[in-house]
Amino acid sequence: MPTSAAAAPAVKVLPEPSGLPEPLPEPSRDELRLETVLGALSDPLRLTIVRKLLLESEDYDHSCGWFGLDRPKSSLTHHFKALREAGVTRQRQYGLERRSHVRVEDLDARFPGLLALVAAWSPQG
Amino acid sequence: MPTSAAAAPAVKVLPEPSGLPEPLPEPSRDELRLETVLGALSDPLRLTIVRKLLLESEDYDHSCGWFGLDRPKSSLTHHFKALREAGVTRQRQYGLERRSHVRVEDLDARFPGLLALVAAWSPQG
Repeated sequence: MPTSAAAAPAVKVLPEPSGLPEPLPEPSRDELRLETVLGALSDPLRLTIVRKLLLESEDYDHSCGWFGLDRPKSSLTHHFKALREAGVTRQRQYGLERRSHVRVEDLDARFPGLLALVAAWSPQG
Repeated sequence: MPTSAAAAPAVKVLPEPSGLPEPLPEPSRDELRLETVLGALSDPLRLTIVRKLLLESEDYDHSCGWFGLDRPKSSLTHHFKALREAGVTRQRQYGLERRSHVRVEDLDARFPGLLALVAAWSPQG
């Protein structure tokens, strides 16, 4: 049972490899809007995605299969796109596959403390 | 143009007067859910309401007329209720009128830093 904010787990930021594909369209750092970012995060599945990327990333970015989510592919595609369009994640196209990572630096600069809340979140028991 | 998070303005917390009406139904502190709170705040009008309460409160709580919002009463009633049901605000019934204030202590305990983001928010120019 949550009683107070636990110390936020450490967010992992892996170095950017060279030669990455171009990012898909996204808002610039200055275009990020708090209401839009909060809207994108106001969903347990999206919080699960962002939290897993923040805490458990094994590579620079991850395709939707990595998350092991039991949802239709079309639903996952929608959620990953919503996160990107809000500016929470950056997506790149690798052949047929899109991979995502969290825009930690941009979000920390514009909304300090927000990602710590996501990292400290846990799904409802 | 926003380039980085400005220092958050100071949040005003006025002392609770004695003899207040009972609060309307609301989630307890432990029942607050990040996804629900973020959903309630993912709207410019609601951010405007919460931010004004945080920064400009003149009394312990305020009726919707105080905000000077140019929206139909029924719409405002809906938004104030949504904020209360998410646990962002506490509402009390004074005769025919409901007044709200922000649950600063509860939100700071569960989601530290969140209200600073709301206080630093500004509507899109």
